[in-house]
Formats: sequence, C-alpha cells, structure tokens
Amino acid sequence: MRNIHGWDGSIDAAYCPVGAALPTVVIMTKQTSLTVHQTARPNGFPTAGNFTFVEAPVPSPGPGTALVENLYWSVDPYHREMMDGDFALHAPLEGRTLGRVVASRDPGLREGDLVLHREGWRTHSLVTAAASRRLTEHPGVPLSAYLSVLGGTGLSAYVGLTRIAKLQPGEDLFISAAAGGVGTAAGRFARLLGAGRMVGSAGSARKVAHLVERVGFDAAFDYHDGPVGELLAKAAPDGVDVVLDGVGGDHLEAAIGAAREHGRIAWVGAVAQYHSLDTPPPAPRNLFTMVDKSIRLEGFLVRNHRDAQEELEDFAVPHIRDGRLPLDETVVTGFEHIVAAFLGMLRGENTGKMLVARPS
Amino acid sequence: MRNIHGWDGSIDAAYCPVGAALPTVVIMTKQTSLTVHQTARPNGFPTAGNFTFVEAPVPSPGPGTALVENLYWSVDPYHREMMDGDFALHAPLEGRTLGRVVASRDPGLREGDLVLHREGWRTHSLVTAAASRRLTEHPGVPLSAYLSVLGGTGLSAYVGLTRIAKLQPGEDLFISAAAGGVGTAAGRFARLLGAGRMVGSAGSARKVAHLVERVGFDAAFDYHDGPVGELLAKAAPDGVDVVLDGVGGDHLEAAIGAAREHGRIAWVGAVAQYHSLDTPPPAPRNLFTMVDKSIRLEGFLVRNHRDAQEELEDFAVPHIRDGRLPLDETVVTGFEHIVAAFLGMLRGENTGKMLVARPS
Repeated sequence: MRNIHGWDGSIDAAYCPVGAALPTVVIMTKQTSLTVHQTARPNGFPTAGNFTFVEAPVPSPGPGTALVENLYWSVDPYHREMMDGDFALHAPLEGRTLGRVVASRDPGLREGDLVLHREGWRTHSLVTAAASRRLTEHPGVPLSAYLSVLGGTGLSAYVGLTRIAKLQPGEDLFISAAAGGVGTAAGRFARLLGAGRMVGSAGSARKVAHLVERVGFDAAFDYHDGPVGELLAKAAPDGVDVVLDGVGGDHLEAAIGAAREHGRIAWVGAVAQYHSLDTPPPAPRNLFTMVDKSIRLEGFLVRNHRDAQEELEDFAVPHIRDGRLPLDETVVTGFEHIVAAFLGMLRGENTGKMLVARPS
Repeated sequence: MRNIHGWDGSIDAAYCPVGAALPTVVIMTKQTSLTVHQTARPNGFPTAGNFTFVEAPVPSPGPGTALVENLYWSVDPYHREMMDGDFALHAPLEGRTLGRVVASRDPGLREGDLVLHREGWRTHSLVTAAASRRLTEHPGVPLSAYLSVLGGTGLSAYVGLTRIAKLQPGEDLFISAAAGGVGTAAGRFARLLGAGRMVGSAGSARKVAHLVERVGFDAAFDYHDGPVGELLAKAAPDGVDVVLDGVGGDHLEAAIGAAREHGRIAWVGAVAQYHSLDTPPPAPRNLFTMVDKSIRLEGFLVRNHRDAQEELEDFAVPHIRDGRLPLDETVVTGFEHIVAAFLGMLRGENTGKMLVARPS
C-alpha cells in the first residue's frame, strides 16, 4: 500500500547533525525523549546546522494533558517559511504528528487513543483533547495516510481542485511540482474526479516517469529541460482548463500561458519562494492576458478550509480501501532523521508526501 | 440628468482631421452619410491621422435590413486594442451605437424603432433585427443611458462588482480609474449596493474632487501624486475587501497590497496597456502575497456576461428614475468630433462615460 521512493540513505550521514549538533549518542530508552529546536535563522537554503536535537527525560502529563508517543511526523514546505520567524529559536518546533496516548490526565483522551496534533518535531508530546483530534480509525487505511492524503497535504490538493479551481469532469489539468505530496495527491484525486488530460511538472526524469507510469498523468516533463512555458506548451498543446500551482514564478507564467478561456488557477503556496523571500520570483510577464482569457487566479491556505476534512475523508477513504487511491509517500524511518528528511523534502528528494516514521 | 464635464472645445480643432483627412467640407444633408475608417495602425498612442472620414450617399436598405439614423455613439478603451488588428483598414469601424430606424425592409424592425447595434462610427447604419437589440424605452431614462450605465460600460461595472468580486454590503472597495465610464458607474452602483468605505484613483485633481463631491467616494487620490501603492495605503489604511481595477501595472500592485485576507480583485481590462502591448506594464512584484492573503484575482470581459443585462436594468432603472443614480457622461455633440472624442477618452479627458451625440 505504501510506496517508499527516492530515499538515498547517504543523505542521513551527510546531513543529520550527529557530532556537532548531537553531542550525545542517541539511544532512545523509555525514559528519554528527543526534541528538535531551531538554533539559527537560515540565510537562504537551510542547513542541518540550523537545528539541534535536545535530549530530555520523557515528560509526565500534568492535570488536563496527555502524554503521546509519536508514530509519524510530517515535514512540510511551510516549515521553511516558519524558520524565518514563526519558529521560536531554542524551543520545540511545531508540526503535524500522529501518535498514541500512553498516559492521560485529560478526561477527553484515553490510553491507546490515536491522535493527530501539532506538537511535532519531538518523540513525545504533551497534548490536550482540545488541541488534538482523536482519530476514528478507518479499517484498511494505513496510519500514515492521516498525515498524507487524509492530512493537510491531501486537503490542500482536494480543496485546490474542488473549492478553488472547481474542476469539472472532463476538464484538462496542469499540476506543477506534481511529484510532491500535494501534487501526487492532486493527481490521484483529479483522476478519480474525472479529469480529462493531466499534465505534470517535476524535478527529475525519475519523477516524470513516476507521474506517468504510476500516478496516472497523461504527460509530464522535467522542468530542468528548458523554459517551463515551452515545455508545458509542448505537453499540453491545446491548453488546460485548470491549474494547481505550488511553485509560482516561471511555472505560474507557463500556467497562465496554457490556460484556456475561463481557466482557473489554484495557487497553493510557492516552495520556490521560501528560500528567498526578500527577492520573490518574478511575477508572470503575461499576467495581463488574464483579462482577455477571463482567467481566475486564487491563492489559498489549507488552514482556512479545515471544514472540508470530512468531505475529503468521505471521498478518499473508500478509494483507499478499494485500492484505487494508492498512497504516494516517502517514509524515512527514525526520528533522528527528521531534519535530514525535512531538508531532503526542500530539495525535492521525496516522491509523494515526505514522512518520518518511528521504527515499528 | 446628464452631466457634461471636462470637454474642451479646442480639442476638436486640434485633433479633428478637417483638411487633410476630410477633403470635402462636411455639410450633412439628408442624402449624405459619414463613416470613419482607420487608415493606419498606430505606433503607440493613436493620432487623428490614423483615421479618415468617408462621405457617401445614405445607403438604402436591401431586403432583410433596416436603415438606422444614429443618435449616440460610444467610444471605448477596447477600440484602442482593436486598432492594432481587429479593425480592418479602409473599412467602416465597429462600435456600440444607438439609433432610430428610418426605413426598414426587415420585418423585425419598424420605422421609428430605437435600436442598439454595433455598426457605429458612421452616421447611418444598415442593421438587421438579428444583429441589433430593439430598445424597450423606460420612461424617465435618458437615451444616452443605454450606452452608459445601461450599456456595456455599466454592465462591466455591475458584473465586476456583483459576479466577479461578489461585493457584499459593508465591504470596503477600491476602484482604479474611477472617474471614467466604468469607474463612475461602479462607484454609483457600489454605493447603492451598500458598499462600505469607497476609495478611487483618478488622473487629475478635478476628477478627484468629482469623485468625492459628486459620485460618493469617501476618498480619492490623483495617481500622479506619488507611488500608487503609497497613495492607496494612505487613502485606505485599513485595506479593502474588493477592488475593481481597470488599469493594471502599478495600480494592480497597489490593489494586491491593500487587499485584505480573502480580498477579491475584478480585473476589467487595462487601458494603460493598450498603447504598448509589446511591453505590457510590469506585473505586480507582490503577486506571491495572494497566497498568504487568499486573494482572488479574476479577469473578465463583459461580452461573456450579456445575460446579466436584464438584471442590470432591473437594478439600475428604478434608481435612474428616482434620481439616486445620476448619469456621469461626457457628451460631445457632432459626429464629426468622434475621432477627437475617442482620442480625448484615451487621454482621460472625459469624466464618466464618453459619448458622441447627434445634434438634436
């Protein structure tokens, strides 16, 4: 069910800060917890040296809280943006995480409960029922799915297609950064929603092949192979009705160029921008054609669409169960690799959603 | 009811091509008709020398056509774009016109009928019932209104506010080029639709005063007075929910900057671009903030929204009758001034909708 792609073990050795950042050897015991802190603001592309792992005793839940042992961690593009200010330095970071309650002093949570919460980047979290979501486990759905196609990543894809772009059956579609978490989920969803011709862009020949051979795209291209506008025009010579763009810059310009009359472009954040917010990528030179083509360009944040979660699950869970919605995930095992996994995700080394798993 | 503003008679002498382009003295008789032809493609800003007036006998209607004596002509920004290719050279131009049937061999039209049609830029037109719209005259509504607030200009404003931007009562609004035909109509409509704070930009102190003193804007600025972004930030320090932009370039950048979360920008063509389509104005440098602010930017063409005409009339006609919707029009009398009126409109010399009227 779960596809593990594209993880090169050597990355761990190269980027995981064993040594400098981890003065003690990490041997997890029942009494020890690990937490990641950011120690410095990045200057451009972040490095492992911007983080440190802090070892401490496993915390005990106070009244009204529960102790959760985390099982899966999500590392996400928006974390890069948070590194510039929203993440406090020398304090536990935040991130979406799935874990199991091991002790509870919150009447809303019981030992054994599976919970989704935001106290990630640590092996053990203290959570409350109010600030977490107790999972109703769907039989036949792998736990990792709750952080991938059923998590914020899948919700971004689903909302972008259905609420923002309002994809209709038979409409042709371009998805940028299509081999990432949001892109693969969007590709799978769009196929199930009856999309017409689907074109995707990705950052390597291997990913291009994955999109066409596995995810169901009709065509895909490696955006290193030339100007994106020309590559897209070749892959979608008749244009597209809908675009889900997560890149911005030249991809957005290409999208506007390829959009047909009444085309809709859902803009779901821009990974390309996160490393250089002072100098965002140039805006599309063809922006003014939006008038002649009656194009709609709409930015959105998934956090404003949490109310679509139930609709997403109603749509996706049956397809996961019957095998029509395979999970695209790159799962790195071992919490001590979370920083390397995050940096690898930023470099696009994942195919599908990048997750970190506790060894089972 | 009709306000005639801002027309400097000297323009006629300066720009109307009497002499070179009009070898014969124009003395209209019942047997003579005048038609404007474009004779050359403009290089940047068009000149009177790009046009000529052609005198000919008044045509006779053949079977299935009717002869219309035109009463009002609309000169529009989109005509500038058509000059680059859509207008055939040395042939009658097209444009929205209101006239009265004087002879008919089309059973769908009768002598005396008032018709709206597109065979403008000429004193007499041959039209068919199929290609024209017979007017149901609303008592108390001046005829010119059918080419201004009830015409394509008013429909652009109405559709932009209601269908594209979906303005809600109480929402704050910025309208660029607010003293023009679409802008003044949008300002009047928005006030009647219950808009909150309304800010407009215009090209002169006189127009700024007109917007605030007559049209009902809460604030307005002359875009020559500094960077548009700064001027708008000063005029709307708390931002706006809705923008109707007809300029693009720096105005669109300012609009994105001022837009609140979930702001909607209706983009109704860009007069600023029409003179230099090879080098469109720079795209907004802050475009990427559309994601963080969940902004929607949507281009539209009024021709795709003709089905809103009846809704517009239902909304506007009662307000015209009861005096709550004064007409903002600059009316130039005399068909021989139509080229000068068009060029004056492109230079922004009109306040409200620019029209040409047959002497009554």
